[in-house]
Amino acid sequence: MTTIDLNADLGESFGPWRMGRDAEMLDIVTSANVACGFHAGDPVEMRRTVRLCRDKGVGIGAHPGFRDLEGFGRRRILGLSAEELTAMMLYQIGALRAIARAEGAALTHVKPHGALNNMASEDRALADTLVAAVRAAGDDLVMMAIAATALEDAARADGGAVVSEVFADRAYNDDGTLVARGLPGAMIHDPDAAADNVLRMIDDQAVTSITGRKVPVRPETVCVHGDGPAAVALAANLRTRLEAAGVTVARLAPGG
Amino acid sequence: MTTIDLNADLGESFGPWRMGRDAEMLDIVTSANVACGFHAGDPVEMRRTVRLCRDKGVGIGAHPGFRDLEGFGRRRILGLSAEELTAMMLYQIGALRAIARAEGAALTHVKPHGALNNMASEDRALADTLVAAVRAAGDDLVMMAIAATALEDAARADGGAVVSEVFADRAYNDDGTLVARGLPGAMIHDPDAAADNVLRMIDDQAVTSITGRKVPVRPETVCVHGDGPAAVALAANLRTRLEAAGVTVARLAPGG
Amino acid sequence: MTTIDLNADLGESFGPWRMGRDAEMLDIVTSANVACGFHAGDPVEMRRTVRLCRDKGVGIGAHPGFRDLEGFGRRRILGLSAEELTAMMLYQIGALRAIARAEGAALTHVKPHGALNNMASEDRALADTLVAAVRAAGDDLVMMAIAATALEDAARADGGAVVSEVFADRAYNDDGTLVARGLPGAMIHDPDAAADNVLRMIDDQAVTSITGRKVPVRPETVCVHGDGPAAVALAANLRTRLEAAGVTVARLAPGG
Amino acid sequence: MTTIDLNADLGESFGPWRMGRDAEMLDIVTSANVACGFHAGDPVEMRRTVRLCRDKGVGIGAHPGFRDLEGFGRRRILGLSAEELTAMMLYQIGALRAIARAEGAALTHVKPHGALNNMASEDRALADTLVAAVRAAGDDLVMMAIAATALEDAARADGGAVVSEVFADRAYNDDGTLVARGLPGAMIHDPDAAADNVLRMIDDQAVTSITGRKVPVRPETVCVHGDGPAAVALAANLRTRLEAAGVTVARLAPGG
Repeated sequence: MTTIDLNADLGESFGPWRMGRDAEMLDIVTSANVACGFHAGDPVEMRRTVRLCRDKGVGIGAHPGFRDLEGFGRRRILGLSAEELTAMMLYQIGALRAIARAEGAALTHVKPHGALNNMASEDRALADTLVAAVRAAGDDLVMMAIAATALEDAARADGGAVVSEVFADRAYNDDGTLVARGLPGAMIHDPDAAADNVLRMIDDQAVTSITGRKVPVRPETVCVHGDGPAAVALAANLRTRLEAAGVTVARLAPGG
Repeated sequence: MTTIDLNADLGESFGPWRMGRDAEMLDIVTSANVACGFHAGDPVEMRRTVRLCRDKGVGIGAHPGFRDLEGFGRRRILGLSAEELTAMMLYQIGALRAIARAEGAALTHVKPHGALNNMASEDRALADTLVAAVRAAGDDLVMMAIAATALEDAARADGGAVVSEVFADRAYNDDGTLVARGLPGAMIHDPDAAADNVLRMIDDQAVTSITGRKVPVRPETVCVHGDGPAAVALAANLRTRLEAAGVTVARLAPGG
Repeated sequence: MTTIDLNADLGESFGPWRMGRDAEMLDIVTSANVACGFHAGDPVEMRRTVRLCRDKGVGIGAHPGFRDLEGFGRRRILGLSAEELTAMMLYQIGALRAIARAEGAALTHVKPHGALNNMASEDRALADTLVAAVRAAGDDLVMMAIAATALEDAARADGGAVVSEVFADRAYNDDGTLVARGLPGAMIHDPDAAADNVLRMIDDQAVTSITGRKVPVRPETVCVHGDGPAAVALAANLRTRLEAAGVTVARLAPGG
Repeated sequence: MTTIDLNADLGESFGPWRMGRDAEMLDIVTSANVACGFHAGDPVEMRRTVRLCRDKGVGIGAHPGFRDLEGFGRRRILGLSAEELTAMMLYQIGALRAIARAEGAALTHVKPHGALNNMASEDRALADTLVAAVRAAGDDLVMMAIAATALEDAARADGGAVVSEVFADRAYNDDGTLVARGLPGAMIHDPDAAADNVLRMIDDQAVTSITGRKVPVRPETVCVHGDGPAAVALAANLRTRLEAAGVTVARLAPGG
């Protein structure tokens, strides 16, 4: 029987500003990637999100990013040393872990955010640094890496826990990278097309690129979004379709 | 045999800006209060400070403060809810703890910084919130509280680990509070006068106020400063004088 | 013929986070208080807001606040020196002025935000500092001060341009201060009651307190809010009712 | 008779942290590039620096940078739109201009800081955006651009005021770019060698690269540093040597 995790980026409100439909998404997903205050989120929002996750049985992951609130961590920042990257990862993971523990909850995983994730997907040295930082933060943490990237390679080479992430609503290039958002066909808006897409990935153990080529991947978690009613509906439909097809939707096992 | 801890605020550099004589101070003190990035310090500086403490056997404490780099955490910020204060404490303590653990070190204590410490010294409700946050962060952490303050009362009432802090270089009012910095006689600049002062506190188990009144305290840790050559010399002389008088200068026992 | 200005706090989005119904409000109000990046707003949001104001003929005012994004400038921060307050005001006003000038627009006024405004309403020394800073920023700027406060007194004493601000949707105490938000009757939710309230202030040249006492004021601008559909409807109804009653709703004259 | 300007980056302290030997440097240089709060500096520091410049007759320039205190504006941040860059420039320039005007002083020039300057030196589209922002901020501002870069080209093409900047203490590559700091021979530490270097640039109207090739430049301002006693001594010696050689050391003419 196939098991899959559904993950979403949550806890992205900051101070007086609200973002995302967290309450709805937490009834759909099995893992939450919680912003840690550098690109979004603040200590109160982190605690609020952790409590909701705990109460709904959703896995809690740290979602560390560059210190760039204004750019939401989506701007690539160059030139950080391995020392700077490592300390930045540990800081954010530790902050969330203390908040989770005070609520009687544990962290399950770490997923880098935005530009940091994109850079680690392409740059093996950067990926190795992030993986080492996650291992240094505690050997119980699963590294969540986009399938078929340098970050997945780094995490698999390292021997620690790792899960491969695929996208329900994005088209893929022949090399397994995502088609850039601006390009035609990059986004899949139809909920059933997105669900078909994921079910095929599971059957094939591969993603099918925009030109029809198959790139082998091990789909273990699917990223969904909660930034609007359509996104939430797509995520809800995906879960329904997966369960109807006999796929078990379940959170990551810590350290698994 | 009397044992006492010497503590100093360290790791207060930020980004490109250096502050303090940390390397010298770490040969004198037995506990470091490490800035956690909100009023001073950054992840790299925290890691650097933790390594130095670990290598020199100095106790590592979190020194959480208000999020106010520009004002160095010395401005009172009003109106934070208990929820905001608690989350802010957990966030900073957790960030430092993760960095320490990655270096094979543990946290020994927590000391609030600057305006946050001053407010908790006066306001029992605020003090109770900070104490509860420290307990929620882990029952192995010692609360470091200025002697004869609301924060000490809160920490003693709670039953968890607590140490009372006295100042070598500050004059006291009759109610056990510190004479405000601007006032005449507030600061003790002569190293031997400062050492005499501390030795008398230990003998008397009391501080002697500026008018000669004795206020009972339990001196368990002495705060010293490292913000200039004179401050470092005062601290070094204090340690020498304490040891010459048969006092053991030793770090806090975790959870003790 | 009576003339009155309607003002609202706008441009409060930050980075990826949206706040307020600025486009709707700019069809209702005649003055915008534009956040300057310290408590809300960012350079791009400031420029966007300035362009909308310019295109709709709405007066552009600087809305400087404490540097406290997380607390939205609503937390009182104590201990800033006159030098710090002055430089902070000049910095924010100048930033907005340069953005406005590059768009062919001029600033009309300055209104302090949140906790800074509340503190200046009560503390004459602080009020004098803010007024002096506004004058130093250019003698063409109108100081917008809540009626019957220390800030209004400071601005009137100074001899420069000043307008008195009243609230459509808030109850007043006998001393002319606002009834605190938490208390019963503090907020007026009914749009017609709010409009009646403002029309009576204009007729009486006084506010009527919650106990029925009249406090003389010179209502020159009315603060309205745009933080939800009900607030926007209240503001729109106020404008309609004012115009129906023969009151001219018009922006402040620069320097007037 | 040849005239040249000497410029230095000043006002780089932030909050409690001091940086640089501004008082000494202001007796040597004729132009100050004043940090505007994004990568260094704060409103109080900006005002302090402006006053010193005004009192010593030193030209006051805005030194805008990326919003990155922790990295001191030295990290390249990718992906900012022209709108974001323009608003960021106007914001910082305007903030400094208001502070200067309140002190009876005017801005003379703008020099981008750190990574922003390096990126604008290489990328003509980015350079055009920065130049347009400076022009939009007021046609009296001189653009200070490193000689023989895309930024100089953009500023010359635009027809507005521009000065070409050379370095006393850096070696040049054959294409007129600076030898990267890490490489052997990149830095010139000997004060007389640095002075010889500048005098030769003036005589040749060219820089001589590390391989001996001459790259034509128009040296109008020389960048010197104040980050240590050796740097200050190098700058002082340069001024002495220039004056001894009959070169007039004088600040930029506004709009000249």
